[in-house]
Amino acid sequence: MLAEIKGLNEECGVFGIWGHQDAPQITYYGLHSLQHRGQEGAGIVTTDGEKLTSMKGLGLINEVFSNGKLNDISGKAAIGHVRYATAGGGGYENVQPLLFKSSSGSFALAHNGNLVNASQVKYQLEAQGSIFQTTSDTEVLAHLIKRSGHLDMKEAVKSALSVIKGAYAFLIMTETEMMVALDPNGLRPLSIGVLGDAYVVASETCAFDVIGAKYERDVQPGELLIINDEGIHSERFSMNINRSMCSMEYIYFSRPDSNIDGINVHTARKNLGKRLAVESEVDADVVTGVPDSSISAAIGFAELTGIPYELGLIKNRYVGRTFIQPSQALREQGVKMKLSAVRGVVEGKRVVMVDDSIVRGTTSRRIVTMLREAGAKEVHVRISSPPISNPCFYGIDTSTHEELIASNHTVEEIRQIIGADSLAFLSVEGLLEGIGRPYEGEFKGQCLACFTGRYPTEIYQDTVLPHEKA
Amino acid sequence: MLAEIKGLNEECGVFGIWGHQDAPQITYYGLHSLQHRGQEGAGIVTTDGEKLTSMKGLGLINEVFSNGKLNDISGKAAIGHVRYATAGGGGYENVQPLLFKSSSGSFALAHNGNLVNASQVKYQLEAQGSIFQTTSDTEVLAHLIKRSGHLDMKEAVKSALSVIKGAYAFLIMTETEMMVALDPNGLRPLSIGVLGDAYVVASETCAFDVIGAKYERDVQPGELLIINDEGIHSERFSMNINRSMCSMEYIYFSRPDSNIDGINVHTARKNLGKRLAVESEVDADVVTGVPDSSISAAIGFAELTGIPYELGLIKNRYVGRTFIQPSQALREQGVKMKLSAVRGVVEGKRVVMVDDSIVRGTTSRRIVTMLREAGAKEVHVRISSPPISNPCFYGIDTSTHEELIASNHTVEEIRQIIGADSLAFLSVEGLLEGIGRPYEGEFKGQCLACFTGRYPTEIYQDTVLPHEKA
Amino acid sequence: MLAEIKGLNEECGVFGIWGHQDAPQITYYGLHSLQHRGQEGAGIVTTDGEKLTSMKGLGLINEVFSNGKLNDISGKAAIGHVRYATAGGGGYENVQPLLFKSSSGSFALAHNGNLVNASQVKYQLEAQGSIFQTTSDTEVLAHLIKRSGHLDMKEAVKSALSVIKGAYAFLIMTETEMMVALDPNGLRPLSIGVLGDAYVVASETCAFDVIGAKYERDVQPGELLIINDEGIHSERFSMNINRSMCSMEYIYFSRPDSNIDGINVHTARKNLGKRLAVESEVDADVVTGVPDSSISAAIGFAELTGIPYELGLIKNRYVGRTFIQPSQALREQGVKMKLSAVRGVVEGKRVVMVDDSIVRGTTSRRIVTMLREAGAKEVHVRISSPPISNPCFYGIDTSTHEELIASNHTVEEIRQIIGADSLAFLSVEGLLEGIGRPYEGEFKGQCLACFTGRYPTEIYQDTVLPHEKA
Amino acid sequence: MLAEIKGLNEECGVFGIWGHQDAPQITYYGLHSLQHRGQEGAGIVTTDGEKLTSMKGLGLINEVFSNGKLNDISGKAAIGHVRYATAGGGGYENVQPLLFKSSSGSFALAHNGNLVNASQVKYQLEAQGSIFQTTSDTEVLAHLIKRSGHLDMKEAVKSALSVIKGAYAFLIMTETEMMVALDPNGLRPLSIGVLGDAYVVASETCAFDVIGAKYERDVQPGELLIINDEGIHSERFSMNINRSMCSMEYIYFSRPDSNIDGINVHTARKNLGKRLAVESEVDADVVTGVPDSSISAAIGFAELTGIPYELGLIKNRYVGRTFIQPSQALREQGVKMKLSAVRGVVEGKRVVMVDDSIVRGTTSRRIVTMLREAGAKEVHVRISSPPISNPCFYGIDTSTHEELIASNHTVEEIRQIIGADSLAFLSVEGLLEGIGRPYEGEFKGQCLACFTGRYPTEIYQDTVLPHEKA
Repeated sequence: MLAEIKGLNEECGVFGIWGHQDAPQITYYGLHSLQHRGQEGAGIVTTDGEKLTSMKGLGLINEVFSNGKLNDISGKAAIGHVRYATAGGGGYENVQPLLFKSSSGSFALAHNGNLVNASQVKYQLEAQGSIFQTTSDTEVLAHLIKRSGHLDMKEAVKSALSVIKGAYAFLIMTETEMMVALDPNGLRPLSIGVLGDAYVVASETCAFDVIGAKYERDVQPGELLIINDEGIHSERFSMNINRSMCSMEYIYFSRPDSNIDGINVHTARKNLGKRLAVESEVDADVVTGVPDSSISAAIGFAELTGIPYELGLIKNRYVGRTFIQPSQALREQGVKMKLSAVRGVVEGKRVVMVDDSIVRGTTSRRIVTMLREAGAKEVHVRISSPPISNPCFYGIDTSTHEELIASNHTVEEIRQIIGADSLAFLSVEGLLEGIGRPYEGEFKGQCLACFTGRYPTEIYQDTVLPHEKA
Repeated sequence: MLAEIKGLNEECGVFGIWGHQDAPQITYYGLHSLQHRGQEGAGIVTTDGEKLTSMKGLGLINEVFSNGKLNDISGKAAIGHVRYATAGGGGYENVQPLLFKSSSGSFALAHNGNLVNASQVKYQLEAQGSIFQTTSDTEVLAHLIKRSGHLDMKEAVKSALSVIKGAYAFLIMTETEMMVALDPNGLRPLSIGVLGDAYVVASETCAFDVIGAKYERDVQPGELLIINDEGIHSERFSMNINRSMCSMEYIYFSRPDSNIDGINVHTARKNLGKRLAVESEVDADVVTGVPDSSISAAIGFAELTGIPYELGLIKNRYVGRTFIQPSQALREQGVKMKLSAVRGVVEGKRVVMVDDSIVRGTTSRRIVTMLREAGAKEVHVRISSPPISNPCFYGIDTSTHEELIASNHTVEEIRQIIGADSLAFLSVEGLLEGIGRPYEGEFKGQCLACFTGRYPTEIYQDTVLPHEKA
Repeated sequence: MLAEIKGLNEECGVFGIWGHQDAPQITYYGLHSLQHRGQEGAGIVTTDGEKLTSMKGLGLINEVFSNGKLNDISGKAAIGHVRYATAGGGGYENVQPLLFKSSSGSFALAHNGNLVNASQVKYQLEAQGSIFQTTSDTEVLAHLIKRSGHLDMKEAVKSALSVIKGAYAFLIMTETEMMVALDPNGLRPLSIGVLGDAYVVASETCAFDVIGAKYERDVQPGELLIINDEGIHSERFSMNINRSMCSMEYIYFSRPDSNIDGINVHTARKNLGKRLAVESEVDADVVTGVPDSSISAAIGFAELTGIPYELGLIKNRYVGRTFIQPSQALREQGVKMKLSAVRGVVEGKRVVMVDDSIVRGTTSRRIVTMLREAGAKEVHVRISSPPISNPCFYGIDTSTHEELIASNHTVEEIRQIIGADSLAFLSVEGLLEGIGRPYEGEFKGQCLACFTGRYPTEIYQDTVLPHEKA
Repeated sequence: MLAEIKGLNEECGVFGIWGHQDAPQITYYGLHSLQHRGQEGAGIVTTDGEKLTSMKGLGLINEVFSNGKLNDISGKAAIGHVRYATAGGGGYENVQPLLFKSSSGSFALAHNGNLVNASQVKYQLEAQGSIFQTTSDTEVLAHLIKRSGHLDMKEAVKSALSVIKGAYAFLIMTETEMMVALDPNGLRPLSIGVLGDAYVVASETCAFDVIGAKYERDVQPGELLIINDEGIHSERFSMNINRSMCSMEYIYFSRPDSNIDGINVHTARKNLGKRLAVESEVDADVVTGVPDSSISAAIGFAELTGIPYELGLIKNRYVGRTFIQPSQALREQGVKMKLSAVRGVVEGKRVVMVDDSIVRGTTSRRIVTMLREAGAKEVHVRISSPPISNPCFYGIDTSTHEELIASNHTVEEIRQIIGADSLAFLSVEGLLEGIGRPYEGEFKGQCLACFTGRYPTEIYQDTVLPHEKA
């Protein structure tokens, strides 16, 4: 039973716009550019000033809004959400934005992040007679808002935010205004821009480029924005700020054309590749990256070392959701689908294979084997991040301690397991300097918990790991 | 009326296997790796030695064979086909392999290429009472086989092949054997490999890597292979050989991990990029390629010049068939979906944008504009092939004379049209040397017709251009 | 806003079973036999003793559970629901059973009927911080249960039932028991049966015949049944009993093979037809009924009068949901689809057309016209129920006062409007005697409100008519 | 192999219209009224005077033309077809009308019936080099037309018709005219009507009523009609006329509101029921018919005997194609879906159960059992046609000799097998007189082959029975 009442809100993407006649359509294109943040489900809620209208579904955004369904939805403002694919979890009712209607007014919620005290709060609310319809953290916030006792929506939201802990970027929309809130640690990226007279907000700045909007600034930790027809208003809902942007957003999660706190993600990755080359150079013939997220780091590694960068691994563009996986027998016969090693490039060569991270090690072992089968003479694995030895409670779906290969093995042991000729990880210092965030302090306002085990927030005893949910 | 009876057989991909218990499944994975050659339709015909079974449909191969449909199909041999997406054309009945049943035995056909005398032959056959069910060139071959008067299938096929002209790689399968034929010019790639005891044949060698097969050799121009339970048998069906491999297969059509006549496609493209850099270097800050097909050339250009290679353009992975295109109004507001320029990379920079070809010029103009809007200070366009000034009659969907920008404009005029600061194409010599095919002669056994206007085959007065069909 | 928070729970069908290894499958077949009570949506919730599992969707039950989806659901007990099609209303979230999960246990609800004080109760609950996820009356009961303060489920349910007013047949299921409640007026039919060792409950007895169960008895007004692995337990939750079975269940809503309070519906309808013949005989050549619900009455009319019963009107079996209605232009050209008049039967004849009711009169006028166009010499309309001159608040989707033709017109006026040669309705006395319910009192425990305007329950000022909802 | 090249054209429905601006829409509604004649597939081909356009698919007509697909199709004339559901056979390519395009003009064919020499003709055509794309008889006619050597379409069609034997109602449409042909035995019904200035033709007259057309006359055996913008022209293509309308069209296949040769089908069936009552009366309490096709006969039986007619068996309206059949285990538990016996009607009664025919006997046994389980004291089965002891070669899907219960058993044996208290069939004389066709001769121009074994046409050695095909 316990599992069912726990929250479910992993890495996702949010987008909102206020004051544009094509708000739902703009939101569609904005969400589309955030599709890499979640492929399980998508939804849009709009307001025409008087009524909230919701449209959502399981699948990719272009599946959910196929066949002109978007034509049925209009409004001057909208918020939208794309949802991360979890193993068994989810279901239609968890697709966001969640819409809550009542006789005294309605509101919709879209959330990116993971609350660490959702179970505790939910338990208390249920004991008081609340009925939860989803297994999503987001609903906790809705009940807190409704039960706050404040008639004013802004006060109700601030009261609710004071209760929850963890990582969150929230978009809240009523018939007449949109609110934007980022947790006091600023664990998730969230930026504001303008499109003509309209305000837009998005998990990543790539959404602004796609819709032709102008980036204004990143939302600040602990900041609450209220946007309506009057304009935009900002206030702090927490004084206890501890800036801790998730490192993984730079390392592999965000799109290379996004900027986070003014730093381009591709450039950050390329710099990580350069630092990695400095820290652990190797004598080799070709550098190749594991597509797509490690390409930038591989380019940086090649550029610094002068070893030619090549397409040694090709990703198959057509491996969609309906793709039929080879049976075990066929896999043993050598059928492989998602990645191909390019024999013409690696045969007889000493190959540096750059990847962004190692979680369980199984994928790395498979790629090393693939490169050797394609004729690589040596395979040197270089990882553009430190070893991940601690679970994430803030929405990144890594793993438990047991499953994280780096929590139980030395680098040399991992090298043997994945079958590489050499293996090196980037250092934490290399990571911080490679990214080069413009903040003071030991960690430059960055969350390193998965590498160091030092969590920026309190962690509750029964906090649920993302992959355990649903 | 005339248009309707003309052929329709553009660039496609074929795959066949003989003598494997998982023949249909292997064919699925083989075709999957050839999906880039055609996304309009896919099909597989199998034989269990006694009966041919067909399964096909419109769409991607994983859509056509979704929901375990492949389980319904078994056999020891199979041929398959992926079909190129044409503007208005096609329809279910044109999806290949075509299956022809009769009381005296059945056969299936899969075809990659374009016949130049299909209209003439079809007209004659209809005058004699034949009924055509498709608008596909492939059916012409079937009627010629049936009407040859030969009881022996091999003789019937040779008789039929003696009538048709143009580009073709044919797979023909009866209940008891598979035949493989390549046109006397060898205009399309086609290779043979082995998988255990089974023979496999595919448009590109990447299919062999994916299924774990071993590459044996490329099929020769004018060669007819007969494969059955006894083994493999080869003969020549034409003595009039004039080796002319399509240049476009190297330049943009084939997958970078494929080899054609022993030359890796990625390596060939990288070399084209290097030759391009030699021929038309430029002072710049970053090199970027138009994804996906120009990445290799861009890497080569960067490597030779020492200008850093960057991800200045990002392709959106999720632009699928059901994606809703922005309305004209939204496009004018700046909504763009397929490609994004990376502001963090190009802002304030002098950018070399490498592309593989220019057909009408509209795409190039759009990308140049996009780079400038993202802040590029200068945009220098470098094309890793010569200007395309002549239509292709062999299956590549370029265009008529009127639509080909290079058939009516000088390079300087094109530069102005696309709005680049400078523009340069690769020379024909650079193309030939960059690819470096291991054949004698002026053109190294390569078709250059779209660049030079010198066609390797006879061209018939009313030969239909691929894009005019259906 | 008001409309949105009002309830939505019209005529529907419910089915439940406790203690059978094929509970979900049995429920599927049971619901299937109740499909005539609702075609908008269907759902099943099962329990395996530890966990409730829900599966539901919009559409017919065989659509919702197509493609073997039922295989994914198992359990020893289940409740199910089929939902009535309303004009614009509904949506996925209103499909029942509704499932409410919480840390202290879960429960599911299925409801047939219409509450008259739902708006009032909902308003109070929202003011106390409750969030409603649906526009269904059923959710009111759930919140009342959760907020009752009783830890014991039975007490919580009884407390909740004491608040609500109107027509309801409720099935409630927790992980470990099923509860069955019928409103104190017994406005909706609900019967209990046994299938081997299992208990079954259904809106109509036809469900028992279909699954091979044995009918035991009808649930009593104000009765609460608790069924679990220990057996069945009955108690009264209200002392204020006023038996008032809906007359329309006999007249047109229930299936002819069902029995209500021991009276077969076909037989009751046939008797209504006989009474009608006695009250308003006519000289004619053929009797025909409007299919399907008036066939029984027409047979009775023919049997008593000796006028031959014929198929003068044919219903098209294939008019499904996806059927394309003729355009206005085509309708004017005479295209008609749902019903056909049989020229070979009615041409040149004096026809008695028996129908079960007249609501707005438009359908009757259309059928009379159709019979005349097919050559009927005279058309005598006979209605096997009294004129409907008052709206129903208990779930039958009749209409407002304004729309009910009989609330504004005399019988003679109606005759002129529908264009009949003569028109007669059954009297209220004829209705009561024709059905012949085995109860004492003026109305024999029957609700006649739509004929007489005398409602068996209190009616609240802003009670919502079913057709106004959503 | 042989099976595959044989024809496939069972009982189907055809509709055509010439000279109406809404021709495709009218055809849709016409076909819809013929849906009972075939549910496997449907198609419409239209002409705008210059080009034939086809739209077809598997499934019911409202599924094939769902979502406004009909809007894409226009024309001044159209022919359409609904196809009978066969066990394993069929497939998309066999859905009609078949469309044949060629450089010298196109034509479309729609066929109701079954050719007896299709295999022989096909074998000869293939030996001459023709390629067949379908397993449908209809394609034989197309090849004969194309190979006739006649440039004039009418002469080509007459030449082709002179070769084929069996049962057929053909609609043929070119860009500029429509031809209608009925076999010399007139085995299948086909009627002509007018709709304003347009000519319409349909398998059954019910189609005329639905679209508001006026019936003109039945097409004559051996008649060829040519309809174009000039008007209608009739000629004979055969002098060897032997009128033999299929008895089964009256007995169970056609719709009760259709007339065949001026006789209403419901009336004919009712008369068969009266004759049956005369021939084999029985002392009983209620008469019931097996829905839908035996209702009319049951009414006739009741009317003549004075035994009350009741709804003793109810057909479930919602048993669609996607309905999930109960597993064997559940069937043994008593789950039944398509038909229900009405306990309230039959309990304790002596029941006469009227059915239109007995083929294998399994259905009859099941219904008798069902009635007894519902409490019937006695069950007397009365069949409104003679015993079927011979297979049909003209398109009715009865069975082989072995499967026809009446070809191996006496009436008394059949009674025991189905478990009835008594059983009687109608006599052949009763059948002929009950229908009362207005023709001279022993058989009144009616085919009785399935009862008598005397076939009206030559039967070829390897004529394929409908149910053996595909």
